Amino acid sequence: MTTRMASEIAEQPATIAATLSALLPARRALRRLAADRSDLLLVARGTSDNAGVYGRYLLEVHSGRGANLAAPSLATHYRVDRDLSDTVAVSLSQSGGTEEIVETQAWAAANGARTVAITNVADSPLAEQADLALVVQAGDELAVPATKSYTAQLTALAVLADALGPPHASLERDLARVPDEVARLLAQRRGVDAAIERLGGDDGEPTTDHTLVTGRGLVFGTALEVALKLEETCLEPVRGLSYADLRHGPIAVLDAQAATVLVAAQDGPLVGGMTELARDVHHLGAATIGIGGDPAFAAACDVEVAGPDLPESLAPLGLIVPAQLVVEGLARARGLDPDAPRGLSKVTQTDPTGG
Amino acid sequence: MTTRMASEIAEQPATIAATLSALLPARRALRRLAADRSDLLLVARGTSDNAGVYGRYLLEVHSGRGANLAAPSLATHYRVDRDLSDTVAVSLSQSGGTEEIVETQAWAAANGARTVAITNVADSPLAEQADLALVVQAGDELAVPATKSYTAQLTALAVLADALGPPHASLERDLARVPDEVARLLAQRRGVDAAIERLGGDDGEPTTDHTLVTGRGLVFGTALEVALKLEETCLEPVRGLSYADLRHGPIAVLDAQAATVLVAAQDGPLVGGMTELARDVHHLGAATIGIGGDPAFAAACDVEVAGPDLPESLAPLGLIVPAQLVVEGLARARGLDPDAPRGLSKVTQTDPTGG
Repeated sequence: MTTRMASEIAEQPATIAATLSALLPARRALRRLAADRSDLLLVARGTSDNAGVYGRYLLEVHSGRGANLAAPSLATHYRVDRDLSDTVAVSLSQSGGTEEIVETQAWAAANGARTVAITNVADSPLAEQADLALVVQAGDELAVPATKSYTAQLTALAVLADALGPPHASLERDLARVPDEVARLLAQRRGVDAAIERLGGDDGEPTTDHTLVTGRGLVFGTALEVALKLEETCLEPVRGLSYADLRHGPIAVLDAQAATVLVAAQDGPLVGGMTELARDVHHLGAATIGIGGDPAFAAACDVEVAGPDLPESLAPLGLIVPAQLVVEGLARARGLDPDAPRGLSKVTQTDPTGG
Repeated sequence: MTTRMASEIAEQPATIAATLSALLPARRALRRLAADRSDLLLVARGTSDNAGVYGRYLLEVHSGRGANLAAPSLATHYRVDRDLSDTVAVSLSQSGGTEEIVETQAWAAANGARTVAITNVADSPLAEQADLALVVQAGDELAVPATKSYTAQLTALAVLADALGPPHASLERDLARVPDEVARLLAQRRGVDAAIERLGGDDGEPTTDHTLVTGRGLVFGTALEVALKLEETCLEPVRGLSYADLRHGPIAVLDAQAATVLVAAQDGPLVGGMTELARDVHHLGAATIGIGGDPAFAAACDVEVAGPDLPESLAPLGLIVPAQLVVEGLARARGLDPDAPRGLSKVTQTDPTGG
């Protein structure tokens, strides 16, 4: 039986293509809206926050603007006054209905920010209250773990970065290749089954005590998202952290009882460091499952899961896809239902009683 | 036998008092340095980064300025150009010698930022290259897990916030009370032994599968620091995350095999939500160890560890102290040496080969 999660993973080439068609024409309006603004503030939570982490790095690297992640409690609980007259607030929420995000967007606007909403629901409060709504084309997402709405959010962020970035370094040509690259990864599944087996999917029992997912820079958000999906779908604690933070402490707890998933782009300034980290982790006895990277990185990992042929700036749009296949397959191998993990609902409110 | 970690924990009333005496007179210079700057950028890693998370919230809430956490790789690996002419960069490093932090401070200065270094070593590169150095008075710290240098960093951040904040809401009177409050917590140890026992210190074997530490807003950094210390000292994976992020996924993995440590201030806008979270986590069957909070919060937790009588803005300077006692006692109960955990050294470099 095909799960909804599997179907929605498979829809992503179409979802990304439709989102590009819908949003690329908005670049002129985005440039106008941000012309006199030098800062970007990303507002999100959960899966959308992992997309926001990608957006933060991509926008800093590509748009020449400062980009930071909001701490929503400063708006919703501390109600601080900020001068945001030089800021564009970019809010992300699949449903567009998460109260804390809607409230933080309203706070940003009241403090002078222009607002852009990235959401899957055109008539949501988030979209309706934003100065400009980038409505992604993921369609209904029925499995609780977000997949296609996440890659659609990444696509929207890449369009935003392209709109604000320099014309001589347009991302447009590589963006157009993303749907085919994702389709190729879905068809080939190279390394996916080996990763499922290594993570303990074979007999339904985890072979490791704990799992850790790591990446850095532009793919750090991907590592966080892989960790969140593994945890919420396979119901075991999984941490995502940057290789820098890993080296500053948690590396001490890695041993033969641990499994690590390392995520890397095929190029860029961090793949060398990730390769070194893979060797060190292997030396400590922990399993190393590599997603993406270059040939040296792949050779340093116990299991090699193929990533996309995309530059680092867009690699996250492809890297998450084989990881989603691993998560879905691992959950099924363990007799769990990836579509409806215990304890989670689709629209999450941070404060159950509101406010 | 008394461990070095225990001795250094006990020194904190003196360390904080000495740091206040040394740094309060720098407030005038800090005000001058930041007078025409509306943004603060905190640069740190590891334990110092947990201090930075406190600084981020405190400075946003108290100083009327925007405060964000830097992603060092944007400086050290992506080498992005940023206009930081409206920014004060505040770098934190106990040793003042962590290359990535020194390099990021230099990047910030080259991009127009004024720079403040918070460090324990006056003749370190970080201090020497900063526009203004706030040298904390922690003295030599010999145990690998940072304790007194961490509370000294928090003290320096509180002095900075007081310097930049409004005169009518000065933190000075409450800051002066911190050394006595910390001394009181050290003498009374209320709840500390019960917490050690509940976390599985009795027979040297963990009674739980995994441990999770949570807090939010001004005490979120404290939760991260408690998690890091538990992990690096007791050598088991421990996660720190905000209650908001916890509700967005990881709460699904909590059950009777999990232990949670919840950290809360005695006042402020978040203690109510933390109390509700304690009840929900208890309902899922996980052990709940509460540090601080108000009487309702304490009543909602299985084990109650007393926190300081300090307002939320300064609560982190006291809340960490009973947690340090728990960590040190738990490590010893498990037959581990808290002074020298496996795999960690005092001055950590993110990239072992430099750069």
